[in-house]
Amino acid sequence: MFPSVVLRSPGMVQKVLKSFQTEGGYDMLVLPGLKVVNSEEGRVRAEFTVEKQHLNRLQSVHGGLLATVVDVGGSLALASKGLYATGVSTDINISYISGAKEGQVVTIDCRCDKLGKTLAFTSVELSSNGRLVAIGRHNKFVAQAYAHPENEIGNKK
Amino acid sequence: MFPSVVLRSPGMVQKVLKSFQTEGGYDMLVLPGLKVVNSEEGRVRAEFTVEKQHLNRLQSVHGGLLATVVDVGGSLALASKGLYATGVSTDINISYISGAKEGQVVTIDCRCDKLGKTLAFTSVELSSNGRLVAIGRHNKFVAQAYAHPENEIGNKK
Amino acid sequence: MFPSVVLRSPGMVQKVLKSFQTEGGYDMLVLPGLKVVNSEEGRVRAEFTVEKQHLNRLQSVHGGLLATVVDVGGSLALASKGLYATGVSTDINISYISGAKEGQVVTIDCRCDKLGKTLAFTSVELSSNGRLVAIGRHNKFVAQAYAHPENEIGNKK
Amino acid sequence: MFPSVVLRSPGMVQKVLKSFQTEGGYDMLVLPGLKVVNSEEGRVRAEFTVEKQHLNRLQSVHGGLLATVVDVGGSLALASKGLYATGVSTDINISYISGAKEGQVVTIDCRCDKLGKTLAFTSVELSSNGRLVAIGRHNKFVAQAYAHPENEIGNKK
Repeated sequence: MFPSVVLRSPGMVQKVLKSFQTEGGYDMLVLPGLKVVNSEEGRVRAEFTVEKQHLNRLQSVHGGLLATVVDVGGSLALASKGLYATGVSTDINISYISGAKEGQVVTIDCRCDKLGKTLAFTSVELSSNGRLVAIGRHNKFVAQAYAHPENEIGNKK
Repeated sequence: MFPSVVLRSPGMVQKVLKSFQTEGGYDMLVLPGLKVVNSEEGRVRAEFTVEKQHLNRLQSVHGGLLATVVDVGGSLALASKGLYATGVSTDINISYISGAKEGQVVTIDCRCDKLGKTLAFTSVELSSNGRLVAIGRHNKFVAQAYAHPENEIGNKK
Repeated sequence: MFPSVVLRSPGMVQKVLKSFQTEGGYDMLVLPGLKVVNSEEGRVRAEFTVEKQHLNRLQSVHGGLLATVVDVGGSLALASKGLYATGVSTDINISYISGAKEGQVVTIDCRCDKLGKTLAFTSVELSSNGRLVAIGRHNKFVAQAYAHPENEIGNKK
Repeated sequence: MFPSVVLRSPGMVQKVLKSFQTEGGYDMLVLPGLKVVNSEEGRVRAEFTVEKQHLNRLQSVHGGLLATVVDVGGSLALASKGLYATGVSTDINISYISGAKEGQVVTIDCRCDKLGKTLAFTSVELSSNGRLVAIGRHNKFVAQAYAHPENEIGNKK
């Protein structure tokens, strides 16, 4: 699933994730344990463990937490293209396919489907124990992201 | 926007919200301040104030938090039909229309579009200072929700 | 549902619909009978009758046709803001709530949720015989639409 | 992309597509040229050529036609699991990534993400000339599909 494409800026995905977890409030609150496992240009694999604080009253992982993972995962996919600034969200959708319980490790496969001048499109698949948990997409407005001095995207028109 | 339909079980929406905020972990973690303002059969108006812990690194409300609001809001719309058990999510989508900053009060208008025997469909609109912040839908699988003894739905086939 | 806002360019919605039905191929093929019933700034009500050619093999209206209605309906909502050029689609979603059979008249309520400089957001509700048939949203990229000479939007900034 | 899994009923996808194109009206009207290229259990590759009747007034393929492709493609993915009856749609979403012009061949990769007792989840990717054109998902209610005598699904619980 991860073709042999060298990530232009191998530290960028980690750097952006760290920024999420320190500069805002919500990422640190809900997903302090999210980790990047692997990244190549346009693709990121991350994971987290379902904690008690991620559960709904049915003791399954909360749909809002999984939607947050689609949000963050799509942004990390853009970071893997060399963007430090990853734009603002325009649309997120998610289908819930199976539940996950406390203690399960959830793998997050993130893909940049297109990084255009104005809009970016990403797909995120969540799985655990070999089963799909959820699938979503996250689209972002990136026109103003290209100006950020910490980007490492070469001469992107 | 709120027609004069008497809510069959006026306390149900409050009861379900309280259950969310005490029996799981995520609702209490991220939205302890969510309040129901008004409810009638099929419609609920709720609100919350954007806190520091709701922000992304751009200091705007995090898309994952807003998706969580669509999740919770759709469930409360089902509660307003008399359901204590509100099923499990199948799909959530959300369009992000404008941002919201720390301290802004966000109004959440939730509507049950259909409560069927197997599936339920809900719509949720978030606004603040007279502007739309986001619009979403939350669909749920409710076939097994009807058996819950705390429901107050009469003889729903 | 239709507040007393005067449509700045009352003929624009009709003009754009006519353009759809004559300058492309798909709108004429599948929805030659779509009619605008009413329009105000930001809102359009249209309708069509389910024909035999709109059916799936279960003899119910085809999901692809209803998605096409969400597409067209969202564009007409933008036309009601004075745009002759209505941009290109970025996202469409639709939830199917109840079926519709041949001969049923389907009412289409279209709303412009936001018309920004780059993106526009619209909502479309389809109903028939007093029941919701489907609900969807249609988001468009409109940055290049503003330059069209046939727009009637004043000095939109 | 196509793992070596033997399709239990190799003719089913073709049979279902033929049924779409003869028993309803819409599939024959808009996509008489849709062809199945390859199918394995849970995956189908199909294609069609963009015709003049598929265009919008910008002379690009109409978003409603592409949404129809997501609809049909998801159903064919279910057929590849042995279902002759493929249920009814509950949700379709689609992101439009790049346009396609008259004469372009569009490849449709369809995947069944889950086939449950009540609900089924599918993903569909459309590409042309090596570029993504659109990505979508199509979810269906399949509880009543299992009773169809022409299914070839063994003893699916």
